[in-house]
Amino acid sequence: MSDYELVVVGAGPGGYVAAIRAAQLGMRTAIAERAEVGGTCLNRGCIPTKTLMHAAHLMGEIRNARRIGISLGAVDIDIERVYEHKNEVVSQLRAGVEDLLSGNGVRLMRGRAVIERADGGVYRVRVGDSAVTAERVLIATGGMPVRLSIPGADLPGVLTSDDVLGKPGGLRRRLTIIGGGVIGVEFAGIFNMFGADVTIIEAMDRLIPSMDREISQNLQMILKRGSVRIHTSAAVKGIERADGGLRCVFEKKGAPESALGDAILVSIGRRADTDGLFSDGTDIGLDRGMIPVDENFETKVKGIYAVGDVVKGGAQLAHAASAQGIRAVSLMASEPAPVDLSVIPYCVYTDPEIASVGIDADGAKRAGIPCKTGKFVMSANGKNVIEMAERGFVKVVFHAESEVILGAQMMCPRATDMIGEFASALANRLTREQMSKAMHAHPTFAEAIGEAVEDTRSLAIHIMPRKR
Amino acid sequence: MSDYELVVVGAGPGGYVAAIRAAQLGMRTAIAERAEVGGTCLNRGCIPTKTLMHAAHLMGEIRNARRIGISLGAVDIDIERVYEHKNEVVSQLRAGVEDLLSGNGVRLMRGRAVIERADGGVYRVRVGDSAVTAERVLIATGGMPVRLSIPGADLPGVLTSDDVLGKPGGLRRRLTIIGGGVIGVEFAGIFNMFGADVTIIEAMDRLIPSMDREISQNLQMILKRGSVRIHTSAAVKGIERADGGLRCVFEKKGAPESALGDAILVSIGRRADTDGLFSDGTDIGLDRGMIPVDENFETKVKGIYAVGDVVKGGAQLAHAASAQGIRAVSLMASEPAPVDLSVIPYCVYTDPEIASVGIDADGAKRAGIPCKTGKFVMSANGKNVIEMAERGFVKVVFHAESEVILGAQMMCPRATDMIGEFASALANRLTREQMSKAMHAHPTFAEAIGEAVEDTRSLAIHIMPRKR
Repeated sequence: MSDYELVVVGAGPGGYVAAIRAAQLGMRTAIAERAEVGGTCLNRGCIPTKTLMHAAHLMGEIRNARRIGISLGAVDIDIERVYEHKNEVVSQLRAGVEDLLSGNGVRLMRGRAVIERADGGVYRVRVGDSAVTAERVLIATGGMPVRLSIPGADLPGVLTSDDVLGKPGGLRRRLTIIGGGVIGVEFAGIFNMFGADVTIIEAMDRLIPSMDREISQNLQMILKRGSVRIHTSAAVKGIERADGGLRCVFEKKGAPESALGDAILVSIGRRADTDGLFSDGTDIGLDRGMIPVDENFETKVKGIYAVGDVVKGGAQLAHAASAQGIRAVSLMASEPAPVDLSVIPYCVYTDPEIASVGIDADGAKRAGIPCKTGKFVMSANGKNVIEMAERGFVKVVFHAESEVILGAQMMCPRATDMIGEFASALANRLTREQMSKAMHAHPTFAEAIGEAVEDTRSLAIHIMPRKR
Repeated sequence: MSDYELVVVGAGPGGYVAAIRAAQLGMRTAIAERAEVGGTCLNRGCIPTKTLMHAAHLMGEIRNARRIGISLGAVDIDIERVYEHKNEVVSQLRAGVEDLLSGNGVRLMRGRAVIERADGGVYRVRVGDSAVTAERVLIATGGMPVRLSIPGADLPGVLTSDDVLGKPGGLRRRLTIIGGGVIGVEFAGIFNMFGADVTIIEAMDRLIPSMDREISQNLQMILKRGSVRIHTSAAVKGIERADGGLRCVFEKKGAPESALGDAILVSIGRRADTDGLFSDGTDIGLDRGMIPVDENFETKVKGIYAVGDVVKGGAQLAHAASAQGIRAVSLMASEPAPVDLSVIPYCVYTDPEIASVGIDADGAKRAGIPCKTGKFVMSANGKNVIEMAERGFVKVVFHAESEVILGAQMMCPRATDMIGEFASALANRLTREQMSKAMHAHPTFAEAIGEAVEDTRSLAIHIMPRKR
């Protein structure tokens, strides 16, 4: 008998969640982690970013405070204290994960794990000086930021999100961000609110190009009004020291341009962390460093599984990794795991928040799916008026004939939580009529969901009738 | 032919929404309003209260600001400016409703409406000097605060919510609130945060007794920590002038007690506003001032309908009134109106927010329905930790055998918007397994929904295993 039925490699949101669920389902489980439990998400990703964003959002609210009757003295940001609070949040949540692992009887092995085949068709996982055998191994080692390969990319002050979240030094005055995807725009919003002079350089023709086009446009407008400089369709050529800072040289519409900053954040994507997993040369078919898996998350090597950011074609999102981890171990234990892995909510923690699930109208068109859409603009929403929130909207897409929901796109306060109603509808293939059955409380931001759904048949109450 | 197919009496959330939908469905529609459009909700209820609450909530956030790295000078509330902002919000939304009515071709008649029978089986509605005839009349005149009938109830300084929302004077130092229902606890939270010394006197054994017991207990704990004094099981006996203020005398466990305040808010309930609707003595069967209706919202008098707070047995909520109004006019026009009127979300805008839909575990027990429950405490939720939110939780109740959802109770940030996911599930009779299909984004408050659902089968990830 092997020491464990399952050894998980990597204690991020894919790994630790899988390990806990495996233990809940009665499997003898161990987990190996070479750094801190919680992975990128908890230590260098979602949680620290959202903690900074919370402070930034509050700065924004405080700017509005005088207008609504709260008088304040001088307001300033103590960036060192902001980072201390972030570290406290991370520590607290990390301790929580460690408690959950031990409370569920999962052995936590600290150190870099190396996998090899052992006798009897099982695997041996070496972690530091110890070694355990396991019937199955689940790889959840996650990913890391991609580094630029242009001249000057190694200069001091050229940073990844890991560096920026590590310590606050030198970011407040002028920050250049290469890459206007989700990570880039979140940091732009945060440091702009903290008082930095921010420039975004994005290769595609718009920010967060994976999102609905109108969301990109609206975000661009809001960031520009907050005096963030935005260059799209811009190809970065190099970085050089200049004028006491770093000059990022790029080409835009054939013409050379440049942006000067004290620091440059490179947020151009993330890559899988799969180096040196096996000591015996076992080939799990890595494809550009990523691990191909079947629908059970098993690799081409029997008994070796993978979930999360290491998986080829994955969503690179913490909640997708967790859901995959639960699915993988549930299948191992022949237990149900109902979550629909194809319905993945995407959230961007800007101000206002952005959230999306399923496909948008452009996506339906590209896929040749006939659709009908509804849209509600938040300026007619009572809570939006009360909170003086930015321009936002809720959009929903249904199949033209079946009226089954295909997707939704939101940009408004609380969007990252409200997307749950749409995700549930999508996972259960609800129709427009079924979605209309739910009454929305007044006054809430969520009333916009009901109105967007009703707009599909031109019956939203708070939309002026279209010209006839 | 009558002048209008429908005349609506009362332009609150029941009436104006019904009028707009009627017009959208092609009915010639007029609406009569004796005061301002928007009714109680917009002028003296939800909207002004939530505007004050927004300022109060921001005061609370600002108190936390230093801890998260935002340094501030002296913070103070300018209550006159808070009320000005409230008036601006109300004016803006009121103008929006007026635009929507006119944009949809609904004639707005200003003045008190009186209904009478006219020739040809139609009705005449007199509004000031004008009179119009209508095939159908929809009564949506709403309600008003109940006044106390005890000695001293008429003293200056004994106020209703209408008075308190009207002007800010004299509320800041010491406020006694008679009635710890939804309105009472919302005002307690607001004025406590604005710096008032608040006392609540409630007749029942707990605050907001219509809500889940644990929600009451948690709210009571949070308010007390904020130094609100709370007296439950207390019978108010009288009010008298004393020590430059008003003394409210009450009996608690047989012993006389009293509370001294500069003002007393009476929030003991609301009653229907149905006086003098008919000039010709038409009897619509008023029952203690309320209007009984059938499932089509028609009264015992053919062609006379009623929705909202005037209806006997109604929920006295703006969104319920709107949904009823839409249902009533849709039936008149033989058009579908899918909203499930039995699934009504209840929200309380305290800090953290409270929201509930369907029944709780106690309610299921009382009804003899076997149920299984799930609960997730927010202290293990990442966003809750980031925002340093108060203790909260999400609870969900499923039928024990069918596993169809029966209800949910939430007390946490954004609960009033997140209840939408549960309301949609309830309106569509989703099962536990169907609810589990939806992936929740990380990090969000809404992850607590997924965890509460999973806790039903003891498989929440972020709950320590129960002692075996």
